[in-house]
Amino acid sequence: MTTNPNESGWALDPQIERDTVPVGDLPLCRVLLMRDANYPWLLLVPRRCGASELTDLDPAEQALLIAETAQAGRVLRAVTACDKINLAALGNVVPQLHVHVIARMRSDPAWPRPVWNVVPAREYEAAARDRLVATLREQLSLVSS
Amino acid sequence: MTTNPNESGWALDPQIERDTVPVGDLPLCRVLLMRDANYPWLLLVPRRCGASELTDLDPAEQALLIAETAQAGRVLRAVTACDKINLAALGNVVPQLHVHVIARMRSDPAWPRPVWNVVPAREYEAAARDRLVATLREQLSLVSS
Repeated sequence: MTTNPNESGWALDPQIERDTVPVGDLPLCRVLLMRDANYPWLLLVPRRCGASELTDLDPAEQALLIAETAQAGRVLRAVTACDKINLAALGNVVPQLHVHVIARMRSDPAWPRPVWNVVPAREYEAAARDRLVATLREQLSLVSS
Repeated sequence: MTTNPNESGWALDPQIERDTVPVGDLPLCRVLLMRDANYPWLLLVPRRCGASELTDLDPAEQALLIAETAQAGRVLRAVTACDKINLAALGNVVPQLHVHVIARMRSDPAWPRPVWNVVPAREYEAAARDRLVATLREQLSLVSS
């Protein structure tokens, strides 16, 4: 694959790296699975140095981000048969721009509240996590994984 | 103004109407100010019947939604001199698709947590609210207000 010049020097935030398992790369974003079995939960991180706010991306990148977010939401919904997709870009703690794409079930521990600060993260059983990541890799239009 | 045929029959969700003050319309979204003086907080509601998930919009509407979200965030940041913009589309309680655009300050009552379920909404003093709405109307590229 070719690397967009805007991507040079980009590196994933170390806290995001600790909290996630890599899934692969879409044209703009790195896709990661949160290490929290309470909710099937993806992060999309645009590979753009220094981006913190949506408005740090140019309009074409913003359009790509929403298209990739929609794709991730559609795939996550199909894979999990969830009741609702929750989307968020907060960044008060980790400033590197990242979009949460979270599959919500009426039976999940936080429903109907947002997921933050409700219950502690719960580790996946390794085989279940690997199966979910493999399924996501099959369904997403990744440029690398 | 002309009305997009996709907009016919659309009406604002009654709970969103109760919780907000109208600001005006961007080409796709109605813009509203949340009745919560804890945080300068806009809602963007696409005027599309039955839309609940981002993926209920077509790709052109998704691109318009992100452009209008970026505009609202830029204006809100300029008007409030906030530290961070938080964006979210949740919809677990009110299914009508709506995007939260929230100005966050290090001094606000929830920082750095997401704003939900931290402190009760606090009513604006009427003159302060009207000034904020007037400033937002001046700064946003509204098609009507």
